[in-house]
Amino acid sequence: MSTNNSRRNFLKTASLGSLMAMSIPEIVSAAYAPAKGKKIQLNKEDIILFQGDSITDARRKKDDAAANSPAALGTSYPFLAAAELLYRYPEKDLKCFNKGVSGNKVYQLAERWQADCLDVKPTVLSILVGVNDFWHTLVNGYKGTIQTYRDDYKALLDRTKQALPDVKLIIGEPYAVIGVKSVDDKWYPAFNEYRQASREIAESFGAAFIPYQEIYDKAQKSAPGSYWTVDGVHPSLAGARLMAEAWLQTVKG
Amino acid sequence: MSTNNSRRNFLKTASLGSLMAMSIPEIVSAAYAPAKGKKIQLNKEDIILFQGDSITDARRKKDDAAANSPAALGTSYPFLAAAELLYRYPEKDLKCFNKGVSGNKVYQLAERWQADCLDVKPTVLSILVGVNDFWHTLVNGYKGTIQTYRDDYKALLDRTKQALPDVKLIIGEPYAVIGVKSVDDKWYPAFNEYRQASREIAESFGAAFIPYQEIYDKAQKSAPGSYWTVDGVHPSLAGARLMAEAWLQTVKG
Repeated sequence: MSTNNSRRNFLKTASLGSLMAMSIPEIVSAAYAPAKGKKIQLNKEDIILFQGDSITDARRKKDDAAANSPAALGTSYPFLAAAELLYRYPEKDLKCFNKGVSGNKVYQLAERWQADCLDVKPTVLSILVGVNDFWHTLVNGYKGTIQTYRDDYKALLDRTKQALPDVKLIIGEPYAVIGVKSVDDKWYPAFNEYRQASREIAESFGAAFIPYQEIYDKAQKSAPGSYWTVDGVHPSLAGARLMAEAWLQTVKG
Repeated sequence: MSTNNSRRNFLKTASLGSLMAMSIPEIVSAAYAPAKGKKIQLNKEDIILFQGDSITDARRKKDDAAANSPAALGTSYPFLAAAELLYRYPEKDLKCFNKGVSGNKVYQLAERWQADCLDVKPTVLSILVGVNDFWHTLVNGYKGTIQTYRDDYKALLDRTKQALPDVKLIIGEPYAVIGVKSVDDKWYPAFNEYRQASREIAESFGAAFIPYQEIYDKAQKSAPGSYWTVDGVHPSLAGARLMAEAWLQTVKG
């Protein structure tokens, strides 16, 4: 179904009164929703862990191990998504944690995986990693290749599934916004391979997949890339909210 | 119109398809919306300032003066409300600031008002203050009375209107959740006078008013007070999201 068709159908089934009660992003979300694919069912007492690099870390307070702690969740999409989940589902007694660490590539997630993932015993695990696996080859001599990324990511998920066979996975696509500060032509086409790899890995592990690149691309129809990201990689506050919206669309209550 | 009636009417005008596209809180908001009263129209290039005490401050980074900076907005309702506004209205080029300071009573807002409000030149000014004006009389010998609160608050708003005649005001009701840690019978009935005063002051200055007490009271139908607030005064992450939702209902795009 094309976007236009699904939008038309959505508008046909919604009365004017209910549309007026919805915000513009809700209407947009409803119109685009059919494209999204697999959703994760949230259950009572789920433990939700956000993992990744600086995009996830977002200055979280690292010595605060409490669940649902605002300071421990950082100032980006994990904070916004967790706030929304706790507000929507008070009966579910959810526990949300953020263990992203700035600068991380996949092998660095692996180095701290026992303490920062397996010991947390998540029932829902959200991972966004890959931009540094590519970016650091341009800026600080990192020698990993696309094959390193694929192999390390698969090994990490195999290990995770072995320790936590029932964990539900959400994998976010690495994205970049060309033309904003750090991201230029040198990124392409090589960076696209990391995006594609994350999609294929998500599929092979039965994960829900968040197509962040498409989401940032669409957002630029309403404001320039510099509105949604500060440097082409890290989200602005508006971009963090955009990412949280996409994340929330991968779960259902 | 009673809550039950407005809910019934809302359900009657919304089709099943559109209801399924809405989350539970959206349905609740839509059902309760008719009670809300005055809304603030947001305009292009509005400068939105959140002012108040620790509930607003929420560990904001005080040496970061940038608009829309995640760290400068703290980890509570101002961050969540600002994120939502920037996401909903990319075309408006809004600038959001948080200048709440922990422990503040009204006279302490007045002491820093030139730098932390008038110099910021807000076009929309949101103030939540009053819990310390009462609480500190119980716990640290503060001698101010309800009359002090009323007089200081009116003087602050007179001064604000004189410097910024076109500023649009949003005034939040001081609230407390009895039975959670810091809040017990000793608060009542005296604390209710501060709530009432804030409502009257909002009305006399033509401000939009956020009835936070009613909002926390209603939220306790779905989870206990300790789910929404950590100590009866400061919101949990779920409570911060609850407050942001109420705040967002006072504005329109």
